[in-house]
Amino acid sequence: MQVYTEQKKVGKQSVLMGKKVAILAAATVAGPKESLGPLSNFFDRHYEDTILAEKSFERAECRMLEEACYLALGKAGLSPEDMDYYLGGDLLNQVISSTFCARSLAIPYLGIFGACSTLAEGLSLGTMLIQGGFAKYILVATSSHNCSAERQYRYPTEYGFQKPGYSQWTVTGAGAVVLGPAGGKGPRIEAITTGKVVDAGEKDPYALGSAMAPAAADTIYNHFVELKRNPAHYDLILSGDLGGVGKKLNEDILAGKGFDITPYYTDCGVLIYYPHQKVNAGGSGCACIALVFLGYYYQKMLAQELKRVLLVATGALHSPTTFMQRESIPAIAHALSIET
Amino acid sequence: MQVYTEQKKVGKQSVLMGKKVAILAAATVAGPKESLGPLSNFFDRHYEDTILAEKSFERAECRMLEEACYLALGKAGLSPEDMDYYLGGDLLNQVISSTFCARSLAIPYLGIFGACSTLAEGLSLGTMLIQGGFAKYILVATSSHNCSAERQYRYPTEYGFQKPGYSQWTVTGAGAVVLGPAGGKGPRIEAITTGKVVDAGEKDPYALGSAMAPAAADTIYNHFVELKRNPAHYDLILSGDLGGVGKKLNEDILAGKGFDITPYYTDCGVLIYYPHQKVNAGGSGCACIALVFLGYYYQKMLAQELKRVLLVATGALHSPTTFMQRESIPAIAHALSIET
Repeated sequence: MQVYTEQKKVGKQSVLMGKKVAILAAATVAGPKESLGPLSNFFDRHYEDTILAEKSFERAECRMLEEACYLALGKAGLSPEDMDYYLGGDLLNQVISSTFCARSLAIPYLGIFGACSTLAEGLSLGTMLIQGGFAKYILVATSSHNCSAERQYRYPTEYGFQKPGYSQWTVTGAGAVVLGPAGGKGPRIEAITTGKVVDAGEKDPYALGSAMAPAAADTIYNHFVELKRNPAHYDLILSGDLGGVGKKLNEDILAGKGFDITPYYTDCGVLIYYPHQKVNAGGSGCACIALVFLGYYYQKMLAQELKRVLLVATGALHSPTTFMQRESIPAIAHALSIET
Repeated sequence: MQVYTEQKKVGKQSVLMGKKVAILAAATVAGPKESLGPLSNFFDRHYEDTILAEKSFERAECRMLEEACYLALGKAGLSPEDMDYYLGGDLLNQVISSTFCARSLAIPYLGIFGACSTLAEGLSLGTMLIQGGFAKYILVATSSHNCSAERQYRYPTEYGFQKPGYSQWTVTGAGAVVLGPAGGKGPRIEAITTGKVVDAGEKDPYALGSAMAPAAADTIYNHFVELKRNPAHYDLILSGDLGGVGKKLNEDILAGKGFDITPYYTDCGVLIYYPHQKVNAGGSGCACIALVFLGYYYQKMLAQELKRVLLVATGALHSPTTFMQRESIPAIAHALSIET
């Protein structure tokens, strides 16, 4: 196993990676609402219902995750046996979608939890493990499901609970990535900025955009300062699931700190649905950034239409218990600079 | 940041590390029942009640975790600012103890979930990150709390629910470790074997010892085979929280595969309480291995009374939802060879 030595820690949170690790392949599986959205054509597999003829929403989510993993492996021309580690996490209690997926894959498994920042956490750790000489290929995957997540975090969707305008719609879907040594066309991981937990005091479990925006702004700010970059360094700055409310807040916080990101910036939660799909402030969930980045922008990078992307996945790290105990919502964001 | 190049992948699950990373310091905080157990004198801090004058058991657990972190940092003569990453996880939904602890520590945070295998997962990842040149110092911590865990996984302890004889008692406490470059007296990470998810079909959420034993046996077996070792290589083989039932099962499975571990083997769940403390098959929970290994055996390693220890932390990766949906209990075990 090759050990790379180009990595260089810069400042407190960032590491320059030297572009030795690439996203070799990526695959996406989309639920019904996502399959009717503007990016539908870019997803690998579509489902017209949320249950997939399974016995529960949890089983349906796990199946989507498994399918995304096997699709990504197939695109990379590799099998589960070729993977040194599987890094996975999701929103469900005890990250069960990932665990049950790991059971069928039988790859050495490291469970992670960063809520909707999970994809970026997995890509960060996976890149470091390959570059450190501990692995050649790593599978990173995540999923979310509207019905399993809403039931767990708020109310079962069957109740038809009316949500406030700043709420977001948990995306149903899954995404998987095969990381490996750079060499071919796959976009490369150029730098990683790992987030600190930021808590701005938001207590409303529907207001996740405003809970997560300060964490996104903190990580993006530190990324720019530590690596001496500005927003124009990137063709695209893409946050995970801040939605309309959080996106604006993120822009405003960074503008107040001297960085105008608006010309380069968009958010997956804003892009994944049409306005007429009635999702209030936009999409959310681990699968939001997985579908939009892996389904759409990753393909644009492969086609050389985008060269430098700053991927910023955000996560709200609360639970229904902490909400009921009147705690505020801690949030986190991890950023990866990805280049072709 | 130094990049080490001695690491060597061996077989599918194991990596030889070259003893470049050491456990520089460790600290433990124990709850009331643990403070009355046979190892009480070895824990750094003791609490006589389970609520710590906090408003909830969850807050009490988080406070124990924070205290363990600061105690470990103090022993290492380091501050949170010196830590490059904080790797943490626990049993509660959305790993809230670790998240809220990370909020106060303000260290770049990577949330992990391996149930009661979390300490070993954190030590494994932390060692790889330091050795790969991404960090100099890493804080790894975990916790569990009898009242918060029982309420979440089974019934609130206030109900006084009668448990079967093969059930275990979730340990109340926390443990933290500072990992850093080897050099002083701290025991070193010599090899890591990362577990696959193993599911033997156990469906009873009280029978966690028998759910986890096949995973422990699988990881230990692969560790021996891949690294061409036998049980006598170690002064001590220490599993996390199999308890009396799981310990025997683990011994039996490995004996059936040709490895008699019994002369070298014990389990933290068997050691942490006296028989008269009425814990049925023994202790369990993330804090079980944290208290017993970090409180007791780590000190023995510092004193050179033990030279080679195989630490095997096991986790049951189910949730109350999967139990109610009649799924079986997937389990995992990660092993670390630690040498003075």
